[in-house]
Amino acid sequence: MHTEAARLTDTQRLDWLRLIRSENVGPRTFRTLMHHYGDARGALAALPELARRGGAPRSPRICSQRDAERELAAARELGVTYVALGEPDYPARLREIDDAPPLLAWRGEPQALTRPMLAVVGSRNASAAGQKFAERIARDLGASGFVIVSGLARGIDASAHRASLTTGTVAVLAGGHARIYPPEHVDLLDAALVEGAAVSEMPIAWEPRSRDFPRRNRLISGLCVGVIVVEAALRSGSLITARLAAEQGREVFAVPGSPLDPRAEGTNGLIKQGATLVTEASDVIAVVEPILGRPLLRLAALADAAAPVPAAGDPDDAERNRILALLGPTAVAIDDLIRLSGTSAASVRTTLLELDVAGRLDRRQGLVALV
Amino acid sequence: MHTEAARLTDTQRLDWLRLIRSENVGPRTFRTLMHHYGDARGALAALPELARRGGAPRSPRICSQRDAERELAAARELGVTYVALGEPDYPARLREIDDAPPLLAWRGEPQALTRPMLAVVGSRNASAAGQKFAERIARDLGASGFVIVSGLARGIDASAHRASLTTGTVAVLAGGHARIYPPEHVDLLDAALVEGAAVSEMPIAWEPRSRDFPRRNRLISGLCVGVIVVEAALRSGSLITARLAAEQGREVFAVPGSPLDPRAEGTNGLIKQGATLVTEASDVIAVVEPILGRPLLRLAALADAAAPVPAAGDPDDAERNRILALLGPTAVAIDDLIRLSGTSAASVRTTLLELDVAGRLDRRQGLVALV
Repeated sequence: MHTEAARLTDTQRLDWLRLIRSENVGPRTFRTLMHHYGDARGALAALPELARRGGAPRSPRICSQRDAERELAAARELGVTYVALGEPDYPARLREIDDAPPLLAWRGEPQALTRPMLAVVGSRNASAAGQKFAERIARDLGASGFVIVSGLARGIDASAHRASLTTGTVAVLAGGHARIYPPEHVDLLDAALVEGAAVSEMPIAWEPRSRDFPRRNRLISGLCVGVIVVEAALRSGSLITARLAAEQGREVFAVPGSPLDPRAEGTNGLIKQGATLVTEASDVIAVVEPILGRPLLRLAALADAAAPVPAAGDPDDAERNRILALLGPTAVAIDDLIRLSGTSAASVRTTLLELDVAGRLDRRQGLVALV
Repeated sequence: MHTEAARLTDTQRLDWLRLIRSENVGPRTFRTLMHHYGDARGALAALPELARRGGAPRSPRICSQRDAERELAAARELGVTYVALGEPDYPARLREIDDAPPLLAWRGEPQALTRPMLAVVGSRNASAAGQKFAERIARDLGASGFVIVSGLARGIDASAHRASLTTGTVAVLAGGHARIYPPEHVDLLDAALVEGAAVSEMPIAWEPRSRDFPRRNRLISGLCVGVIVVEAALRSGSLITARLAAEQGREVFAVPGSPLDPRAEGTNGLIKQGATLVTEASDVIAVVEPILGRPLLRLAALADAAAPVPAAGDPDDAERNRILALLGPTAVAIDDLIRLSGTSAASVRTTLLELDVAGRLDRRQGLVALV
């Protein structure tokens, strides 16, 4: 296991990539597995048995060494590098979120990932005024030393990237580096890579599907000290980013608009809920400057997992059955599971991990349900 | 002196009118004089001597009985009634402000002055969207039982009045009832009087000058539980109303707009300073409903002045000179005057009243200066 400031060996990086690319292993399960088994190699070896105990109908697809090597080769071809959670060049704020990608694939100018970042996001079908404002605030915040993060989408995202090409901009991809979306923004992304970067947690050739965008949005907010929502209708992706930002403890900023403009409904609503109203860059800087002065939370999670959790934490069949009997399609709190099953917290955690790896568990904000 | 719920006699009303129409007597000086002399008749008799002691170059113009009678006759002609501060039909919230007009001249439907009021104000050169929004919120708040108060100006004010003609609207005039401004709104005002009212503190034939509008704005906010600013550029009259509203403890609401729209600069600025963002009537109602449930402050000031302040409070010449020596064109706090002069608070208050009546004093937020 690596220590806080150390880098992974090539072998470790390959094991990490295999583990995160294996079926039913997301960033949270990855982290639990690392806690449990101490390293990715051990976790990979344990996956089939965990899935079997979790009641998987078949053995989960485990990413082969060969497939992982193929992805690394394709990445090298594109100039993409994988930085691991805990390595010194992993983006500092992103490490703080509890579902930070174990490996972040990036290309471009590495400096861009070390400076303070602010997200500028908004509607794809933005108004001319919205796009003009996005350009203005991205340019002004860029000039003030911030890297501008966005999602490379049409509308507000593209305006924000374009206005910060020379000062540094980061595009967070919903797919892999070999599948830029939308395709007409390939040139914009190339321009962004000169002073900025592109990042992705997805396999290099991953074609983004609609469900990948909300998942990606947590990285946009997670990288940043704050998120500025320029124009957003109700129930838009930008509001998802704003919600994730708030959950991650990030500052949420919103640009007001006329109550008669549907594209301002989302942003006006955010301000009503407590987001900071923004009309100019100084409104943002006044809020984030004191935050930048504070030390970041140290992420102890992976660094502390140097030794495997004692096998004593594993449940026996009777315990496992008591826990399973309490689970169903209705979400239940993990605390209630521990209390009602009369087993240890460690037994519950292990049983849930088994269900995770078996692809049978849905976790949402401390609640779990069978799928 | 009248008691809290009693009405003035005709003679008292005439004396009140003469006193408030006399030179250098504003609402605050009126109140101080009533405290000092117990009734308006006594105050009128004291004015020349007070002005002399205050160093007035000539005796102040005192409104004659004949001029006051002439104003009352002209008012009757127009259907205008004078209600005195402390009388039961004086608008309840307006009584709370410390510069409430001693006499409020009104015409229209008296019920309109007894119901909860909300002001809707904004730019004269409003956008179509701003006017549409003003209509919508005035209509919705009117339907919810609120009387809509505004300033009869072009733009937002006129839209607010028009949308609340049937539910009740109050126009606060900057001039007298015989000088409606702007003249093209005479018909709008006539329509407003059916279910609503017009109010003014100015002499019946007073032609409004530009400095009368900010003074009038304190009545718009003072009548209301809250003020909604729809569109306002920086340094606009509506922002003066918002500031006065905040000073009077009224709720301030502002309608957001695009940062690229100069007509939204004022309202966005108000929201930054803590005003409640409004996109629909329910945003306003949620804030003011709990306030309407609370009892109003009782205005003790005039009711307590049943007996004249003892003459012992009057300063002798030495005291008066010590106080005067501390005054100049630079504003000084009244507390400092008391401390530095080594005289009593009563002596300082009396000396300042003399300077007031002599037209030599400028009072601003607890500070005084010679003019």
